Amino acid sequence: MQMVDVGAKERTARVAVASAFLRMLPATQRAIREGRIEKGDVLAAARLAGVMAAKRTPDIVPLCHPIALSGVQVEVMPARGGLRIRATVKTVERTGVEMEALTAATAAALTIYDMCKSRDRGMVLEAVQLELKSGGRSGTWSRKAGSARG
Amino acid sequence: MQMVDVGAKERTARVAVASAFLRMLPATQRAIREGRIEKGDVLAAARLAGVMAAKRTPDIVPLCHPIALSGVQVEVMPARGGLRIRATVKTVERTGVEMEALTAATAAALTIYDMCKSRDRGMVLEAVQLELKSGGRSGTWSRKAGSARG
Amino acid sequence: MQMVDVGAKERTARVAVASAFLRMLPATQRAIREGRIEKGDVLAAARLAGVMAAKRTPDIVPLCHPIALSGVQVEVMPARGGLRIRATVKTVERTGVEMEALTAATAAALTIYDMCKSRDRGMVLEAVQLELKSGGRSGTWSRKAGSARG
Amino acid sequence: MQMVDVGAKERTARVAVASAFLRMLPATQRAIREGRIEKGDVLAAARLAGVMAAKRTPDIVPLCHPIALSGVQVEVMPARGGLRIRATVKTVERTGVEMEALTAATAAALTIYDMCKSRDRGMVLEAVQLELKSGGRSGTWSRKAGSARG
Amino acid sequence: MQMVDVGAKERTARVAVASAFLRMLPATQRAIREGRIEKGDVLAAARLAGVMAAKRTPDIVPLCHPIALSGVQVEVMPARGGLRIRATVKTVERTGVEMEALTAATAAALTIYDMCKSRDRGMVLEAVQLELKSGGRSGTWSRKAGSARG
Amino acid sequence: MQMVDVGAKERTARVAVASAFLRMLPATQRAIREGRIEKGDVLAAARLAGVMAAKRTPDIVPLCHPIALSGVQVEVMPARGGLRIRATVKTVERTGVEMEALTAATAAALTIYDMCKSRDRGMVLEAVQLELKSGGRSGTWSRKAGSARG
Repeated sequence: MQMVDVGAKERTARVAVASAFLRMLPATQRAIREGRIEKGDVLAAARLAGVMAAKRTPDIVPLCHPIALSGVQVEVMPARGGLRIRATVKTVERTGVEMEALTAATAAALTIYDMCKSRDRGMVLEAVQLELKSGGRSGTWSRKAGSARG
Repeated sequence: MQMVDVGAKERTARVAVASAFLRMLPATQRAIREGRIEKGDVLAAARLAGVMAAKRTPDIVPLCHPIALSGVQVEVMPARGGLRIRATVKTVERTGVEMEALTAATAAALTIYDMCKSRDRGMVLEAVQLELKSGGRSGTWSRKAGSARG
Repeated sequence: MQMVDVGAKERTARVAVASAFLRMLPATQRAIREGRIEKGDVLAAARLAGVMAAKRTPDIVPLCHPIALSGVQVEVMPARGGLRIRATVKTVERTGVEMEALTAATAAALTIYDMCKSRDRGMVLEAVQLELKSGGRSGTWSRKAGSARG
Repeated sequence: MQMVDVGAKERTARVAVASAFLRMLPATQRAIREGRIEKGDVLAAARLAGVMAAKRTPDIVPLCHPIALSGVQVEVMPARGGLRIRATVKTVERTGVEMEALTAATAAALTIYDMCKSRDRGMVLEAVQLELKSGGRSGTWSRKAGSARG
Repeated sequence: MQMVDVGAKERTARVAVASAFLRMLPATQRAIREGRIEKGDVLAAARLAGVMAAKRTPDIVPLCHPIALSGVQVEVMPARGGLRIRATVKTVERTGVEMEALTAATAAALTIYDMCKSRDRGMVLEAVQLELKSGGRSGTWSRKAGSARG
Repeated sequence: MQMVDVGAKERTARVAVASAFLRMLPATQRAIREGRIEKGDVLAAARLAGVMAAKRTPDIVPLCHPIALSGVQVEVMPARGGLRIRATVKTVERTGVEMEALTAATAAALTIYDMCKSRDRGMVLEAVQLELKSGGRSGTWSRKAGSARG
């Protein structure tokens, strides 16, 4: 069990994008859209929770390196059957930020679940996945291309 | 935006069970099973990360109450196409532990992703969902039954 | 240096209310009201930051007891010359929640400062103070009355 | 809601100084000075709490970047009508440390309040404010000058 | 890997006492006693760090339950060859606080090491151990007696 | 009380190695070796807890700088009379990682204690100590040599 040594890697600009989809009842979607969730503004809370969780990634994912993050952006968009979440994390460090992006997307989704669960306990968080990473020795990876393209 | 007041609710024994499925390449499954992941013992790390994340839920999910947890168990099981995770959280408190169970399951999955990502960036975390909750005013809910049966 | 022993005190319902005032330029107030702050929705972020900080109080205030909180509410209201913040924290525990209310109000104010500081570095956080506490051996205290009234 | 991208900014030496004033009863000031506060050494606790809180700023202020800090100093000085706090934070990073300095000053003040509150619940935290920042693209700002002087 | 379920145990008053001994050079002891350590008041910092670490125990010890603590006291005493640390933690909960006491004693010792290490890197933390626990189903244990005496 | 300013130091590769020894009953050693500890895999948990604690050092040791770590490794080895722990931490920063290595070793030991304490409350954590540090202005120090050899 080790946090692998990245000291010999170069500091380079790195980006990771992750997405998640939270499936919910049409009535729940409507309640969110119309601002009728008692706990408050669901989308604002989800975005902020995502940003904050990105910063806590090394506490949540045991072997993840603690690094400085240069930017985090979390978007939550209405989609057919639920809400789509997209998290973008940037750094200029010796290791990538895939885990930060995945953690941000997940935390945003869990926050929505929490705020709406009294209405819809059956919501399902589907398809949390990396969409893109770039920078660093392993180069660019994108879900569409499905492979490293240095 | 508020953490709703649960002071008038009763302290009762409460349980929540959440599950998650992490889809991966057959080669990744094999590498985990054969202990060939360089970062260490993936299943042990995932279980421990899940337990620790359950305790950090109020830091990750903004409107979640900070409460004492009486027990947390995280299981990771090989399944067709990937690994299945199951988290059980118990408390004797004024509010439920659904978010703790979902957070534990998610953190366990993200930990596996982190330890195997250099081989398989395309892994997808599918179907994070509540399976069961019991205790408290709203009674028992189970995914199969799909409704409260107080 | 000690966290005083409260084990012999009774678990009772306790409430604390704290307020803060953040003085700012009229142009900053206008920019917030009109949603022109680049970092996002200032009031939603401030409220959420306040709720989350209440939960972290024992990490920030060294001799403060770690306890379960039953409810937290943070309001941010436009006022003459700036924004007024009001945080209400509730518990059913052996010790009061004055520090949690003060920490919530302060964190909400610092969050507003952070989001607007590129426009207005001169903002001043004035008059962070306890307004009311009730419950527990020392009874009710209110700023207006200025004394315990058991 | 986003943590703005600072990846293109340069790493430069940056300093921020914040101050706070905690108004209290003359009897409270005397009790602190004479070491009669039951919870322990108030000034030492306040200074240490301020340093520790500076490190936790990204957990408290949602859109604040997590960065390495190169130095933190917190002073607490007796003043007419209360205690004056001054926090100095330094870094060599892509973003400033104003929020760290403000958070340190505030946490020091809250710690004093906590240790003395059983005697003096009416204490008021007045005038938490930035005094100076230097370094970075926006240059030097000082409260006296009241403007950037690149 | 599980945090064992303590939900069926009774809430009872529990105490744990742990001790530690930090061996150091006579010159280091003298520098501490005479207040010549550049980083500040070593004993005050150690006591405060111990109290704060007790609260963080569930973050540091993975299978430790998150519980409310009713009191924490940390003492640091000059002794032959170094400093002796004694941490006492109390709770009224379903599980004991041995880990909290051991963590507090250890953190206090590490804090002293940190503040004096530029003078004396060879300091050794010896004999971190439980001295006493009482309360709960397993009753009282004391190092001297060496056995449970329910 | 201050976190001393290291802004003028150079970023260089630094390593620290710390060790600890946890003395226990022969029966406890056997139970660990044979995998009969009810809470789970003790050695895996200890290693992971050590890695995670290294990342939390600035939260536990008050005047310790928050920095990026480039690698952490924790080993736990059976030894005569107990278990020996060895933690290696690496960074490329302006300050050393002795405290991170000592904290990792200690947290690993406390985790073992926690998992076995129902069988063996008398375990003693002996000889937590720095073995080696290299890098930075003060150069290399090793316990054997006992002195800096720049």
